[in-house]
Amino acid sequence: MESQEIKNLIKLMAKIPGLGPRSARRGVLNLIKNPEKLMLPLAKSLIQVSENIKLCSVCGNIDSDNICGICKDEKRDKNTICVVEDITDVWALERSNTYRGRYHILGGVLSAIDGVNPEDLRVKELIDNIKINEVKEVILATSATLAGQTTSFYITDLLEDMNVTISRLAQGIPIGGELDYLDDGTIGAALDSRKILNKR
Amino acid sequence: MESQEIKNLIKLMAKIPGLGPRSARRGVLNLIKNPEKLMLPLAKSLIQVSENIKLCSVCGNIDSDNICGICKDEKRDKNTICVVEDITDVWALERSNTYRGRYHILGGVLSAIDGVNPEDLRVKELIDNIKINEVKEVILATSATLAGQTTSFYITDLLEDMNVTISRLAQGIPIGGELDYLDDGTIGAALDSRKILNKR
Repeated sequence: MESQEIKNLIKLMAKIPGLGPRSARRGVLNLIKNPEKLMLPLAKSLIQVSENIKLCSVCGNIDSDNICGICKDEKRDKNTICVVEDITDVWALERSNTYRGRYHILGGVLSAIDGVNPEDLRVKELIDNIKINEVKEVILATSATLAGQTTSFYITDLLEDMNVTISRLAQGIPIGGELDYLDDGTIGAALDSRKILNKR
Repeated sequence: MESQEIKNLIKLMAKIPGLGPRSARRGVLNLIKNPEKLMLPLAKSLIQVSENIKLCSVCGNIDSDNICGICKDEKRDKNTICVVEDITDVWALERSNTYRGRYHILGGVLSAIDGVNPEDLRVKELIDNIKINEVKEVILATSATLAGQTTSFYITDLLEDMNVTISRLAQGIPIGGELDYLDDGTIGAALDSRKILNKR
């Protein structure tokens, strides 16, 4: 017999992706047991983030400023932008510590089933971004899914008349991947894009 | 490159059991995208619960009052108490809608490895609870694990001199369980406690 307040909290927690009703219940109980160390800091942090977070008007990233840290960073190559689906992709690429250009976040992928049309994506902003920053190379880094590839083709078409190089992330065997466990599509793509090591 | 505030929120979220660093990141992103519908209501609900929640001084349940709803409910048999490990167990028993007595929450189980001794459990409160409510039956509903059974034996020993019936939950095949998928211990317990249907 949870009280109404706790029931409400469990319901809200269960809406977070990755938590179902059962794990939300366990999570809430853990929070209740640590009010000072976890529950109140979490509440404060939620309020702080919701008050301070802004969408970067250039690339669509989230930050505490109108222009995000990456777009402001003069050390980053502004002539190269990497087009990604979502903010998590930016985070993933940043964690890899290999990319020194800037980003453009579409906010999704084209999908007839989910009713996502080009107007729903930040496509107009992409064209503005390319013009303003005098972009020379656009790296398409949408997912290797059907919707991701469709979006990638759509953008390639759209940018045809603009004077930019368009590239996409290489497809192949992931590092640490064993052939036996990989799907046919990945193996086929890796064969097609094989790299010649010593040309004779 | 998450901002410091977002990093902090992800770190706090990852402390919730059931959420790891990766799913916490996904969860936070989802919260950020729904500030009005999810993020602020969650923050408010956390503050509300942390301010209003109290431990019931009789049974150890959590509620918005000093004496919880179950202990206050005169319709519930106060002469029968069910001893459980944690508040989630109370919630599980309440969901089953079959028990009309009251509860006593130990707050854990005896465990030499984790350094949990009888002083760490609400054992003294259990004896007080039995005396005050003139309890006639104590149902031991600790888990069917080693630690749960040890705790159950310890309480049985402790209550030996008191004039109360002690029982424990039946062990056997769970409803819907198929013999082929059950462990030997469960099948053995079910055989030992078999119920005779027609005595000849």
